[in-house]
Amino acid sequence: MRVMVTGANGFVGRLLVRRLLETGEVRGRRIEALLVLDQALDGLPEDARLRRHHGSITDAALLRRALADGVDVVFHLVSVPGGAAEAQYELGYQVNLQASLELLNQLRNPNRPPVLVYASSVAVYGGELPARMDEGQPASPQLSYAAHKRMVEIALQDLARRGEVDGRALRLPGIVARPREPNGLRSAFMSDLLHTYAAGEAYTCPVSPEACAWWMSARCCVDNLLRAAELDDLGSQRIWQLPVLHLSIAQVLAGLADSFGADNLARIAFDPDPQLEALFGRYPPLRSPQARELGFCHDGSVAGLLRNALDLPSRRNRCVVSRKGVFSWP
Amino acid sequence: MRVMVTGANGFVGRLLVRRLLETGEVRGRRIEALLVLDQALDGLPEDARLRRHHGSITDAALLRRALADGVDVVFHLVSVPGGAAEAQYELGYQVNLQASLELLNQLRNPNRPPVLVYASSVAVYGGELPARMDEGQPASPQLSYAAHKRMVEIALQDLARRGEVDGRALRLPGIVARPREPNGLRSAFMSDLLHTYAAGEAYTCPVSPEACAWWMSARCCVDNLLRAAELDDLGSQRIWQLPVLHLSIAQVLAGLADSFGADNLARIAFDPDPQLEALFGRYPPLRSPQARELGFCHDGSVAGLLRNALDLPSRRNRCVVSRKGVFSWP
Repeated sequence: MRVMVTGANGFVGRLLVRRLLETGEVRGRRIEALLVLDQALDGLPEDARLRRHHGSITDAALLRRALADGVDVVFHLVSVPGGAAEAQYELGYQVNLQASLELLNQLRNPNRPPVLVYASSVAVYGGELPARMDEGQPASPQLSYAAHKRMVEIALQDLARRGEVDGRALRLPGIVARPREPNGLRSAFMSDLLHTYAAGEAYTCPVSPEACAWWMSARCCVDNLLRAAELDDLGSQRIWQLPVLHLSIAQVLAGLADSFGADNLARIAFDPDPQLEALFGRYPPLRSPQARELGFCHDGSVAGLLRNALDLPSRRNRCVVSRKGVFSWP
Repeated sequence: MRVMVTGANGFVGRLLVRRLLETGEVRGRRIEALLVLDQALDGLPEDARLRRHHGSITDAALLRRALADGVDVVFHLVSVPGGAAEAQYELGYQVNLQASLELLNQLRNPNRPPVLVYASSVAVYGGELPARMDEGQPASPQLSYAAHKRMVEIALQDLARRGEVDGRALRLPGIVARPREPNGLRSAFMSDLLHTYAAGEAYTCPVSPEACAWWMSARCCVDNLLRAAELDDLGSQRIWQLPVLHLSIAQVLAGLADSFGADNLARIAFDPDPQLEALFGRYPPLRSPQARELGFCHDGSVAGLLRNALDLPSRRNRCVVSRKGVFSWP
């Protein structure tokens, strides 16, 4: 089995590569070669199965070299995040749209269509969400990042229909806890909140305690990416909204207080940015029975999310958070 | 005012070019140059305002030369039709998707965004339509042609949101009456029926008399393209489903009998192709109040459709067709 990961040195990519090397198989077959493609590859372990392809996904020749000996399963993770893609349109256009289309084209194989797992995004829904949402919600991209993600979803679905690429697209929510470094993600505050609280540092949260977002740990995200690769006998349905934890900042803080003690709560201040609040604070509850039916999952609970996101060994105190975000510890 | 038409030598393109030269203005300003781009340009009149750019839309350098002196309004009509694009994927991909994206890129101008009128298609809705439809129907492309049209709509909407291209996309129904020549269109029978009936020739219709499709004459289509260019102060809404005439083959035949006499009815036979019937015979009634509000229109009636499509001078007899397709002449 030959497996490829684009964006292999990224936050989710590293974790996925490590997991693939650990389990050593995908779709019930042993991984002989793991092709890793990224602009840097310094975060990846030494392993004889790794084939390092160092460079940009926008380099079609690099892609051709990487795929020269064939590939069975591809995890296409690389992307320029929403904030950066909005500011640098041309970069987002080349990486998020054109490189993805080129990859799809190079993967076309009607005789033995390779499995492609594509990391799409909940950004495709756009700004105006209904009070309650389910998997049938139409896409309505409001950012170039989201427009390009949606366009690639459509291309993927078309090539799956043609039987040329066995594509599967997952719409990912905000994934935590990303490393504390500039990453161009507007949702970076979700990870920063977790890291600073855990470290006992002061943090000014750019959205209100009532702001509700969709959360998923990188570990859970990797579970879902692998699950997507395992699925068989798919019909025309090729795009799934992953189950998510719908949590307010107050609920996440309660979970953090539970894990790291309530003292750090005093170090958290709030200075809501109306634009961020509008983009990331108004996510409604989301039902995703179809995705759950297929074995996709979220982290189960705030405690599960924090355990998975921050690699916590076990739980300490419990805390209770009311719907209104009032904290109380039993 | 500098105006460009891609696919200028096509069925709708020729009519649009002729109309632009006749009226001599767009958006209230005189047309100084009309840039026409196509692989052949033999169907266009002699006119000092024409700037002929002979070649393929997939030639980015040709496009750059054509746009070198700037452009105010672009009508982007060229496309590889659905049947041909499905059979020759790479051709459809390059013309319908990549050349459109390249055109959009070359038009980007935040200081003075050019108006772009894009000919999209009702094909974006896909196969399974509800019993009644309105403008809110989500797209669900089931052909590569439709997938690529939908992707370009999304790119257009994104660049309009960014204020870089003042794009407007119209979803066109089957346009009649196309010249009787191989054109790769699966809906060619709609035009063939009109031409053969008018000529008094025998014709075997590949869909049943009950098959209902959406109809529009090329003349009406040109009206709508020009209307789209005139619109001002548009918000985020950039994609419109045009009003259509929802007519069964029986209703169209009744109109033809009205215009050309009922004798020719005997020369029409039916041999429904299940695939064509499924693709083009199941179109439901369609409400499009938003588009009507903006001044978009259909041909008004079967008689209007045939008059516009076949360039008929006036009406002769009247005929009545019942809902079930039973003919009777008063």
